[in-house]
Amino acid sequence: MAVYTQVPAEELAQFILRYDIGTLVAAKGIAEGVENSNYLVDTTKGRFILTLYEKRVRTEDLPYFLGMMSHLAERGVAVPRPIVDKQGQALQMLAGRPACLIEFLSGISVTAPSLALCHAVGVALGQMHKALADFTPTRANSLSLAGWQKLVAECAPHWAEMDPELATLVPDVLKDLSASWPSHLPQATIHADLFPDNVLEIEDRVTGIIDFYFACTDIRAYDLAVTHSAWCFSTDGKTYHADRAKALMAGYEDAHGLSAEERAAFPLLVQGAALRFTLTRAYDWIHTPAGALVTRKDPMAFARRLAFYRNASLADILGQ
Amino acid sequence: MAVYTQVPAEELAQFILRYDIGTLVAAKGIAEGVENSNYLVDTTKGRFILTLYEKRVRTEDLPYFLGMMSHLAERGVAVPRPIVDKQGQALQMLAGRPACLIEFLSGISVTAPSLALCHAVGVALGQMHKALADFTPTRANSLSLAGWQKLVAECAPHWAEMDPELATLVPDVLKDLSASWPSHLPQATIHADLFPDNVLEIEDRVTGIIDFYFACTDIRAYDLAVTHSAWCFSTDGKTYHADRAKALMAGYEDAHGLSAEERAAFPLLVQGAALRFTLTRAYDWIHTPAGALVTRKDPMAFARRLAFYRNASLADILGQ
Repeated sequence: MAVYTQVPAEELAQFILRYDIGTLVAAKGIAEGVENSNYLVDTTKGRFILTLYEKRVRTEDLPYFLGMMSHLAERGVAVPRPIVDKQGQALQMLAGRPACLIEFLSGISVTAPSLALCHAVGVALGQMHKALADFTPTRANSLSLAGWQKLVAECAPHWAEMDPELATLVPDVLKDLSASWPSHLPQATIHADLFPDNVLEIEDRVTGIIDFYFACTDIRAYDLAVTHSAWCFSTDGKTYHADRAKALMAGYEDAHGLSAEERAAFPLLVQGAALRFTLTRAYDWIHTPAGALVTRKDPMAFARRLAFYRNASLADILGQ
Repeated sequence: MAVYTQVPAEELAQFILRYDIGTLVAAKGIAEGVENSNYLVDTTKGRFILTLYEKRVRTEDLPYFLGMMSHLAERGVAVPRPIVDKQGQALQMLAGRPACLIEFLSGISVTAPSLALCHAVGVALGQMHKALADFTPTRANSLSLAGWQKLVAECAPHWAEMDPELATLVPDVLKDLSASWPSHLPQATIHADLFPDNVLEIEDRVTGIIDFYFACTDIRAYDLAVTHSAWCFSTDGKTYHADRAKALMAGYEDAHGLSAEERAAFPLLVQGAALRFTLTRAYDWIHTPAGALVTRKDPMAFARRLAFYRNASLADILGQ
């Protein structure tokens, strides 16, 4: 939530001249993205977001992320289009960092989505999956089963600091998922992080899907499972909104749909999604000092989802 | 450099309806202003900055600052106009904080100003002073002589941690200024913080003067002295740019001008300005842990200016 790399206005004005987008008229550092530095940039010809990639993003992955965004934008999916310079390049260097200018999209991110928006998000995810069917680059998901096993080992000594229940819940779920994870399901390019703050909307229309920096190749239906875990609960995970789940699943069904096999495995996939965010939040919790300016996200918010999913029926999860 | 108060999009959308400015279409927290939380807000009718005032700004001072901005905007000075709601109120409450929506102004803040821009800044400051001649509210400057004496007492045990030279330079200057500070010069409403990052420009035109939260009633020519100390040196204070000083002073002369008495006292006023920023930076330096995410500004950058001013002739300072 900060601008890590400061770009002097003079340097930014020069940078803008690499593109055919007019000249710089305004620039503001924006407090978004935990991982990168972002500027909102206005030129005489339009409005853009400039991202400077900080150390947590691997430079070698950037062509994959930007390629995916360009692929989707070309197919009419509401994602920010990477802007190419006069030589046709999207990926740049600026202030010693890899950088990219992308289209600015209108819209806001809600914290309490309406049912109409949940349906629209399901449609948008399905459309994105359709549009990605012919996207051929791949990227391994470091936050799938093997990654979870590693994170559990690292977090294990600290469960009691967060919540004693985690010490039994997490290893139990991991053991079960290790035995039965449905790796045979169709794999595809997935967003893998479609939380409400990565969806821009205006009056229940999805105007943008953003933040592709966890995108990877993994079980396609797992993307819907991540989305389910992100959208269908109160933020603290204490309340499950079956009506949102029903709307989300119906939207996805309209635009893409699940096979019978994917549907049958969906209770495992949502447990995997809830486990993934419990673990990464727990890891960040352990590694962020309590007094730091960065807000720590509560791992229990996803542990509660995990506990819910573990006891829920398929009908519960589908909101039926 | 952060957004301290998070406003959920739903709450922001409701807030926007208090005004006659259309409906919310986008909002981004911006990483500007050390003191407050700022959002860049787009509605169907325009573009605005929303400021939520954090604890360091005294709520009782806000009508003064907003009144000054409105006064200047009405007189055609390029400052962000505070927007009033349907009841005619500019000052609001939002998310438990005093808040105000102001006009968005184009322009960027440069770090290495051209001579043309220095001249334009002198003109803009002079025009602002003219437009403020009939602004009657007052606010004491807590960072003038009495404030400096207090800060020197608080910083005294720490000079050696920063630079041993400070231990003699600062008390010597304070002693001299205490004896000869030209308090008899005409007082007026002043900006008191017209640094390059508080001036927006496009191609050497001043498109906006921003950040009025140090504005106060004090010696009018002291405002020009602050501006001189902020614009006429390299950032680190090691290099004096006499040509910038000449351009700045000429611009101010064109739009407002100094009396013979103000001019004669100008070497004292610039020492006061350099002392003020040396002291507040030293105070912040002492009270900010070295590992904090907030960037500490180097007090030596202004101590070097102070040492320069102490030995400079009036002609040097005027760039002649």
